[in-house]
Amino acid sequence: MATRAKAQPDRPGLVALTGRPAETAVGKVWLVGAGPGDPDLLTVKALRLLSGADVLVYDRLIPQAILDLAPAKARRLYVGKRKSVHSVPQGDLNDLLVALAREGLQVVRLKGGDPFVFGRGGEELLACRAAGIACEIVPGISAALAASASLGAPLTHRGLAQTVSFVTGHAATGEDGVGDPDLDWAALARPNHTVAVYMGLTTAETLAARLMAAGRTPSTPVLIVQHASRPDQSQALTTLAGLADAARGFDAPSLLIIGEVAALADLSLPALPALAAAGSPALLQGQRA
Amino acid sequence: MATRAKAQPDRPGLVALTGRPAETAVGKVWLVGAGPGDPDLLTVKALRLLSGADVLVYDRLIPQAILDLAPAKARRLYVGKRKSVHSVPQGDLNDLLVALAREGLQVVRLKGGDPFVFGRGGEELLACRAAGIACEIVPGISAALAASASLGAPLTHRGLAQTVSFVTGHAATGEDGVGDPDLDWAALARPNHTVAVYMGLTTAETLAARLMAAGRTPSTPVLIVQHASRPDQSQALTTLAGLADAARGFDAPSLLIIGEVAALADLSLPALPALAAAGSPALLQGQRA
Repeated sequence: MATRAKAQPDRPGLVALTGRPAETAVGKVWLVGAGPGDPDLLTVKALRLLSGADVLVYDRLIPQAILDLAPAKARRLYVGKRKSVHSVPQGDLNDLLVALAREGLQVVRLKGGDPFVFGRGGEELLACRAAGIACEIVPGISAALAASASLGAPLTHRGLAQTVSFVTGHAATGEDGVGDPDLDWAALARPNHTVAVYMGLTTAETLAARLMAAGRTPSTPVLIVQHASRPDQSQALTTLAGLADAARGFDAPSLLIIGEVAALADLSLPALPALAAAGSPALLQGQRA
Repeated sequence: MATRAKAQPDRPGLVALTGRPAETAVGKVWLVGAGPGDPDLLTVKALRLLSGADVLVYDRLIPQAILDLAPAKARRLYVGKRKSVHSVPQGDLNDLLVALAREGLQVVRLKGGDPFVFGRGGEELLACRAAGIACEIVPGISAALAASASLGAPLTHRGLAQTVSFVTGHAATGEDGVGDPDLDWAALARPNHTVAVYMGLTTAETLAARLMAAGRTPSTPVLIVQHASRPDQSQALTTLAGLADAARGFDAPSLLIIGEVAALADLSLPALPALAAAGSPALLQGQRA
């Protein structure tokens, strides 16, 4: 378990930030949360790592404005998945990350949201550890936090939700999303509890039916949020009873926020500032000025 | 519910970033997640809002290095709470935010972690809405995400955890933390489920006893993480059976990560880079260069 410390005992993490290639033969893998899509919601650390990356390995959900933050000379490898169509199997992806690090590269593995919340970051981390490759994780703003913030619907709120659970609509049969989620419906149906469902759109009808069968009130409010934080964000407020119908108006990836807090959402919010759509570099110029 | 759009129909959010006072009579409140403490884990947006703030209203958990990112001339109002000692009651705090905005100020209400995950941000948002004050929420890296990333223990992981629940050890009796948390122990005791407990240190013994009584295996691994992401981060890996004893070695605020994923933590990690302790301005200089 001492892999990381042994691999780079005296190299602070910021070495990667100079943009210079590592002088040692072995590089490093950074599993970096890219957040929900708005470049403004990158962490400062993610932004800096991007700017010093030798190679980006990225998924479908990473917008161009974020990819553009890496140096022009950085290699960009798309390994995105679509539902039921895997561009790169996870095992091959793990091998790719290890191989790139062994070339001496600073590898930024960009993942939508947070690498450790339904991001399969754990599998990539373990592959690096097994290969003796240093791997560091940079947390990101997960979609539920972004959706909640953008609409003013808190995930926890006194008297409405003392617990928030993050689940995935694809849990049961894994990555292809076929079949029913294997979730603890009775637990999720408890009142005073917010349930954030990632990738829950295709199974929304089942989710709603199971939760109601387990005792959650049909009038429980539900937010559907697509592309949280992006210029094309869209959302709807419905109920468990209305979820199946309402979900048909959205495409994946969308997030569901189920629970009384959803009713606090302000759906009258204006469109996101146009500047956010223009990508982060302009904003960062402002910061530099 | 159209408060925000009406209050500032044609002012993009970036007006606050110029550092110039608003020209209209009414200011705005930004509920900004400051993340776990490392200035590097601020979002780009939070950083920029800080740099243009007229006034900061902040809690105990915000480190000086982050407060220093605001202009020297910005007012800094400490409203921190200590366990069982409230510096400013929530109602007074809500009133304060509204009053400051009515002075025409750009008010940055800095909250540790994410404003909507056990941050009571919802109460402040509702107070602003009721008063007709524009209020925008900026999500932050919540402590569970930071702790998970820093130790390489994913919150979800195929075969180990398909759900992650965030709860607070103070849930039952609220803010003073006296008494037992009123949680759904049977639901939390389910296997294949990570439970992140915020402010769970003082009730750790009860938490462990209740989870074991509800069927969670005594050997279930548990991480205790104090000051995640900060230079003085400390952590321990224990089990449910050992939690009560292990918790005595930590001070609040600490986070508990309960579940099989905790065993994936790499406790051999070197200390955090010294640069992170030096505060973000130096790092940002590097970014600007």
